[in-house]
Amino acid sequence: MAKEITPRAENYSQWYNDIVVKADLAEQSAVRGCMVIKPYGYAIWEKMQSVLDKAFKETGVQNAYFPLFIPKSFFSKEAEHVAGFAKECAVVTHHRLMNNPDGKGVVVDPEARLEEELIVRPTSETIIWSVYKNWIKSWRDLPILCNQWCNVVRWEMRTRPFLRTAEFLWQEGHTAHASAEEAQAKAEQMVGVYAKFARETMALPVIVGHKSPNERFAGALDTLTIEAMMQDGKALQAGTSHFLGQNFAKSFDVQYADKDGSLQYVWATSWGVSTRLMGALIMAHSDDNGLVLPPALAPIQVVMVPIYKTDEERDAVLGKFAEIKTALEGRGIRVRIDDRDTLRPGFKFAEWEMKGVPVRLAMGSRDLEAGSVEVARRDTLTKETLSLEGIDAHIQALLEEVQKGIYDKALAFRDANIRKCDDWNEFQTEIQKGGFLLCHWDGTPETEQAIKDATKATIRCIPVDSCVCEEKGRDIFSGKPSKCRVVYAIAY
Amino acid sequence: MAKEITPRAENYSQWYNDIVVKADLAEQSAVRGCMVIKPYGYAIWEKMQSVLDKAFKETGVQNAYFPLFIPKSFFSKEAEHVAGFAKECAVVTHHRLMNNPDGKGVVVDPEARLEEELIVRPTSETIIWSVYKNWIKSWRDLPILCNQWCNVVRWEMRTRPFLRTAEFLWQEGHTAHASAEEAQAKAEQMVGVYAKFARETMALPVIVGHKSPNERFAGALDTLTIEAMMQDGKALQAGTSHFLGQNFAKSFDVQYADKDGSLQYVWATSWGVSTRLMGALIMAHSDDNGLVLPPALAPIQVVMVPIYKTDEERDAVLGKFAEIKTALEGRGIRVRIDDRDTLRPGFKFAEWEMKGVPVRLAMGSRDLEAGSVEVARRDTLTKETLSLEGIDAHIQALLEEVQKGIYDKALAFRDANIRKCDDWNEFQTEIQKGGFLLCHWDGTPETEQAIKDATKATIRCIPVDSCVCEEKGRDIFSGKPSKCRVVYAIAY
Repeated sequence: MAKEITPRAENYSQWYNDIVVKADLAEQSAVRGCMVIKPYGYAIWEKMQSVLDKAFKETGVQNAYFPLFIPKSFFSKEAEHVAGFAKECAVVTHHRLMNNPDGKGVVVDPEARLEEELIVRPTSETIIWSVYKNWIKSWRDLPILCNQWCNVVRWEMRTRPFLRTAEFLWQEGHTAHASAEEAQAKAEQMVGVYAKFARETMALPVIVGHKSPNERFAGALDTLTIEAMMQDGKALQAGTSHFLGQNFAKSFDVQYADKDGSLQYVWATSWGVSTRLMGALIMAHSDDNGLVLPPALAPIQVVMVPIYKTDEERDAVLGKFAEIKTALEGRGIRVRIDDRDTLRPGFKFAEWEMKGVPVRLAMGSRDLEAGSVEVARRDTLTKETLSLEGIDAHIQALLEEVQKGIYDKALAFRDANIRKCDDWNEFQTEIQKGGFLLCHWDGTPETEQAIKDATKATIRCIPVDSCVCEEKGRDIFSGKPSKCRVVYAIAY
Repeated sequence: MAKEITPRAENYSQWYNDIVVKADLAEQSAVRGCMVIKPYGYAIWEKMQSVLDKAFKETGVQNAYFPLFIPKSFFSKEAEHVAGFAKECAVVTHHRLMNNPDGKGVVVDPEARLEEELIVRPTSETIIWSVYKNWIKSWRDLPILCNQWCNVVRWEMRTRPFLRTAEFLWQEGHTAHASAEEAQAKAEQMVGVYAKFARETMALPVIVGHKSPNERFAGALDTLTIEAMMQDGKALQAGTSHFLGQNFAKSFDVQYADKDGSLQYVWATSWGVSTRLMGALIMAHSDDNGLVLPPALAPIQVVMVPIYKTDEERDAVLGKFAEIKTALEGRGIRVRIDDRDTLRPGFKFAEWEMKGVPVRLAMGSRDLEAGSVEVARRDTLTKETLSLEGIDAHIQALLEEVQKGIYDKALAFRDANIRKCDDWNEFQTEIQKGGFLLCHWDGTPETEQAIKDATKATIRCIPVDSCVCEEKGRDIFSGKPSKCRVVYAIAY
């Protein structure tokens, strides 16, 4: 375990890759761009899923499942969507292998060509709206509020574990409504669910805002986003919620009979978060010693490491640990006693530090005699010796403190790296230092594109909630009038 | 709703399809053989997942995620496996679409051909063992106990919702062990988990047994199965657990250093259940009025239908329902008050009957005055009028009674349709009537094949637990000596 990871200051990108591998989260597979999510990484994803799934259901959403494959012709139906999505994707052309007539192994059977190629879903709007057409006849059938947890594939050229992979896991919600207002409200509600999840569960301060037209989802009238700042000052889009208008309803001819009997096209939203959140989690909180996990997402919240020389000492300490474990589990805390006999305490400390376990208890026979235990916090790397009396209540409070501490640290970092900028020359230098720049924008795609071409920076969002932004001014690039500031950053 | 379903006696297969559609469980999609699992059907699958996932984790299994795609060459590595699996499957050959140069729509970009074709996983032994090679160096790394919940694709020619679909959802467990004994024990443990789940949660009496060599999983040394009897007397294989020996370890060169330093090939198991369980659930318990759900899997366990003429009556009854709902939810019971205003009670009764809700309460203002409520059981279609006093405790007990009643009914049906048969002429007539025949078998694949060719019946299993079977005799077909009886049936 004691292998070190590359420090952030030396090579941020390598630091990230090192943590993914050394904290046992994921690894590359034999298939280009497809990762294996290892049990420890997957356990974190399961925690995310469980919190989000509950939050979705509280808003009336139900889960369902739609096909993995989408007929090629569906991609041609929604003009903007095809431009945005139907390019780099996995195409199924055949349905059979056969023994190689020329020798060993198997080959594709040329006789088994599909009449129409199938695309492995990069997102499911088209297939789902082809299904909704059968479900929706009248206003009584609305709203439809479905979500699915599934895998999707986008044939990315450059991939990085969690952040950008050819196959990834996500949830995609797809709702159908009788009115534009109701659909817009749903899109806003769901970005709100994401923001709350990011802040309270992931300890990730996020800015909620609208995407500029250039950055919208293909086929959306409005895209809402949560944007987080990573420790290198880059932005990471952590979740999006789209108001799709009637585009998909029109493409798939989905109409409902209104109360007065007239036919109306249905209004749509879609919204999703993915295993990319794992990347955000790692890059927002971890340090040069490894992963740092907010307690709300830690598969193991408290690890206990016994220190002993003799079997008697071992038994005594493990006996006390078992008592503490029972008390902590009674409080709903996830605990592991590391009683592995073949490893030294120092090795175990390093391993659990690497894996980001929020609180570590260590106890030797002298501690036991003194009725105390050493308590170490992963986030601050601080230690204190505490009395065993009331230790379970203390640890419960400590976990809450750690959760809050991680959030506060990320918030302080973000706030220290957001600044207003009103000068184009300054912008070009400042943006390369990382962080978010709050600048005036004239609202045109041309300006945004020109700035992107010059600096790689994009408008991450037009904030809706944290507004120092509503203020008149002049566009930083064009000098034209502007009604508010937007967030510029270089993004993952 | 009041549309009727085809009676079982008239057309069993159509009855099944009618229930799938009319109970809102699933429907066909635009993609051949791929179904849409609708919210009500998916909610049942989620209940199954949640019970199974907990049971797996209690045995030490962890979830993980492996790639959707498998390089074609991997299928050639395990000779038996390729014969069993590498035939009808979805083959990805290209990674890009492009605008059609000749006109509208999109076409496959011929420049974007993959160097090696990728197969959409029909099962994941090969990709997982290619990964386990990196995880296993020493005996300390063993056992590895992983499971994944995912989708798989097998290009079936004839499909039926849930029972046989091109894409289906399942879990696949893959474990790696240092010894054959440990791996065999794990395979047995997991078939035990399945049997307990089938009996206690699905109310499905199953026979646990070994598959005959002809019916084994491709690449397994032993396949354990749970076999259930459907109401038409056919058998349905509801879950399997395989002892894979060292076949995959040898194909992917996965060895571990033993305590004495010598290199040993690793021993493997795999085990899975799928959305096919939904088909088993429907066909085992439902009747000519629709779905019948065991309470343990019912998304709604108790539905309450108010009966009223005036608004005052409505408010009074709904007020009482709300009280009862709170009391029931306090006991962990899933409840829905059907307060839809546009539908008559009779329509609602039929709808919830169709959807298999185990217990229905109906109340009008006269009931309310009398302090009573009408309680209807879905499984027996019986009704009784009960005092409101202690109604929550009564319903909790009733749900347990319903769960047991559904199991007992299925068990009685199965036992009435299992019989010994010792005469080949009798066998040929009897097997066509449905049910399981317990017959002597000489242990040869030739006999099994001859019987299958003559009657379509196969050996469903060589039972391990319910044994009237250990008894010497003579093979029903060949007349050769036999040590025990096996279960013959025609299967789904």
